[in-house]
Amino acid sequence: MNYFSSNFKLGILGGGQLGKMLLNDTRKFDIYTCVLDASDEAPCKIASNEFHLGDLMDYNAVYNFGKQVDVLTIEIENVNVDALETLEKEGVKVYPSSQTLRTIQNKAVQKLFYVDNDLPTATFSRFAYLSEIEDAISNGGLDFPFVWKAAQFGYDGNGVKVVRTLSDLEDLPKGECIAETLVPFKNELAVIVARNASGETKTFPVVEMEFHPEANQVEYVICPARIDGQVAKKAEAVALKVSKAFNHVGLLAVEMFQTKEDDILVNEVAPRPHNSGHQTIEASYTSQFEQHLRAILNLPLGRTDSKVGGVMVNLVGAEGHTGNVIYQNIETIMQMDGVTPHIYGKKQTRPFRKMGHVTIVNADLSEARRVAENVKKTIKVVSK
Amino acid sequence: MNYFSSNFKLGILGGGQLGKMLLNDTRKFDIYTCVLDASDEAPCKIASNEFHLGDLMDYNAVYNFGKQVDVLTIEIENVNVDALETLEKEGVKVYPSSQTLRTIQNKAVQKLFYVDNDLPTATFSRFAYLSEIEDAISNGGLDFPFVWKAAQFGYDGNGVKVVRTLSDLEDLPKGECIAETLVPFKNELAVIVARNASGETKTFPVVEMEFHPEANQVEYVICPARIDGQVAKKAEAVALKVSKAFNHVGLLAVEMFQTKEDDILVNEVAPRPHNSGHQTIEASYTSQFEQHLRAILNLPLGRTDSKVGGVMVNLVGAEGHTGNVIYQNIETIMQMDGVTPHIYGKKQTRPFRKMGHVTIVNADLSEARRVAENVKKTIKVVSK
Repeated sequence: MNYFSSNFKLGILGGGQLGKMLLNDTRKFDIYTCVLDASDEAPCKIASNEFHLGDLMDYNAVYNFGKQVDVLTIEIENVNVDALETLEKEGVKVYPSSQTLRTIQNKAVQKLFYVDNDLPTATFSRFAYLSEIEDAISNGGLDFPFVWKAAQFGYDGNGVKVVRTLSDLEDLPKGECIAETLVPFKNELAVIVARNASGETKTFPVVEMEFHPEANQVEYVICPARIDGQVAKKAEAVALKVSKAFNHVGLLAVEMFQTKEDDILVNEVAPRPHNSGHQTIEASYTSQFEQHLRAILNLPLGRTDSKVGGVMVNLVGAEGHTGNVIYQNIETIMQMDGVTPHIYGKKQTRPFRKMGHVTIVNADLSEARRVAENVKKTIKVVSK
Repeated sequence: MNYFSSNFKLGILGGGQLGKMLLNDTRKFDIYTCVLDASDEAPCKIASNEFHLGDLMDYNAVYNFGKQVDVLTIEIENVNVDALETLEKEGVKVYPSSQTLRTIQNKAVQKLFYVDNDLPTATFSRFAYLSEIEDAISNGGLDFPFVWKAAQFGYDGNGVKVVRTLSDLEDLPKGECIAETLVPFKNELAVIVARNASGETKTFPVVEMEFHPEANQVEYVICPARIDGQVAKKAEAVALKVSKAFNHVGLLAVEMFQTKEDDILVNEVAPRPHNSGHQTIEASYTSQFEQHLRAILNLPLGRTDSKVGGVMVNLVGAEGHTGNVIYQNIETIMQMDGVTPHIYGKKQTRPFRKMGHVTIVNADLSEARRVAENVKKTIKVVSK
């Protein structure tokens, strides 16, 4: 099929920032796009050929949308998987597959998948209810500290908590969850694997999530990771093995821990363009968004190496600010060397909401890292 | 003014491929955009916030459109300048200015501007009618060969002809024109100058237009130009002087000849993003489109140096093909190293119509040039 001139339609479930950046690269290839999202203010409302309003968790909304397109992809995992399964049976190409999404949507199922496929991951226990965790603790079946994770609908740090005492459990959701061994890791790494339907596979370089020493929040994504080459190779090999286990088509972002002993443990995966790949827009020969399109359209994959070093800083809403957004000092950071802000187009800010990101590129990665620190100190996402 | 969160509106006159690529970068900064174009099938119809239908040469269409926006720019020079002049008086920021456009729209006036401002350019004579050229030849006032140029509405090689005999004049338009000395040049060069309203100025590297040895058509734009450093400096200095003479805000693409004696002569200018800057999207720290936005919004300008070497190949409609377009072998070129096709989204091809371009980047420029030749041999823009 010739995507560049036919009546081909690409459907995207979700109209947020990832969809918006994906749409940018569809314009480059002149691909006809349809987007489904529940919000009339979604960033994807412009730049798509057709914007449809509808609930991504609603069977009929997803089914009726999906049956109008040739290839269907996602920019968010929380979509109605039953509808995707029906669409697959009816001949729509769905990437990632309903099976992959069903595995990933539930963190307990995802963890079991790793175990079943002999993929390294932190040990864990599965619980149908939060109360069962309390039982396990009082029975001596579970020791502090551990990491509680909600089985479903967690995102961006929601649904994850380090539990050190009983009182840490107090305000958590009551439903299905896992308790995972707290891994003392040296680095949090990620590798984005691209695979097209013909089986061609490429990996982007290993990136490193640098944490704030006190706040324990990811501050910078750094590409390439400043780690030993052997460890990088191991991380790539694990990521490829995960992609193969899923028989995945499209992008698969694999987040991993590098332990104190330099072992690699899979933390979690996202079957789509990912926050850990935003720097590819400026730093790589092929952006992750273009690569996702190439993969799901079964086109040849592009080069994944970097032209220059890249550092990414998320722009999240400042604490104490809710309302119409202002990007304070954005003009100041635009004076800095190799700095590109990406504003997602959300009109309202609230504390910790992802409002954009800034990429800093430089032939010298440590210089990019230095500028990134300056960017982070300077720009503030506040309300009017 | 904060362009990133206010009710700011950017207007673009023209909805073609340059506008389309400019819109891509407005999305990155979440700038609200309005586009005016006469065609309901214009590439800018999607990705703009508002698309308005109207004739760019019509005073009322341009005036009524322009009075709704804060900053007005162009992606094509043939627009109603009287309307722009009125809008400027009423406080709309128009970049390029009506004065610059008035000078550039008429090639005779443009050439006189170079002379008046002591800018090097090939000698020429101005004629009110084509018949006056014939008179000058018969009077001995003009010798073959020379370059005929229509004073108005030429583009992409239309409106320019090398005249070697009287019969070469036969099918030319009868109106105002110039006859220019045929310069035996070594290279055709171009420099894109960016200047914001505060006066900050930056130049992109000198690029080289490589011609087909027989067809005398530009085949490749090569960045940086493979020329002597001193010549490159001279070309940059001339380009800056041209920009200063126009007191230009935005991008100004200055096309120049490098003569056999290594002199630099200004050929013509375009006050907007330009075909000679497309490779900046992949090769430069800042794309020409982002730079144009930074300039006209009076933001700090971005870095203009290159991450890697870049070569650009235009995709024009093949001879003998008119109708619904197909990009033959596009999947083959996408397998090549560092190749990115840009498809403009025009549904109909015709001979020599600009339908897209392909950028080839590589740390080694000669390797990029080699791949570019392979791209050019492989892809064909044909009709179904």
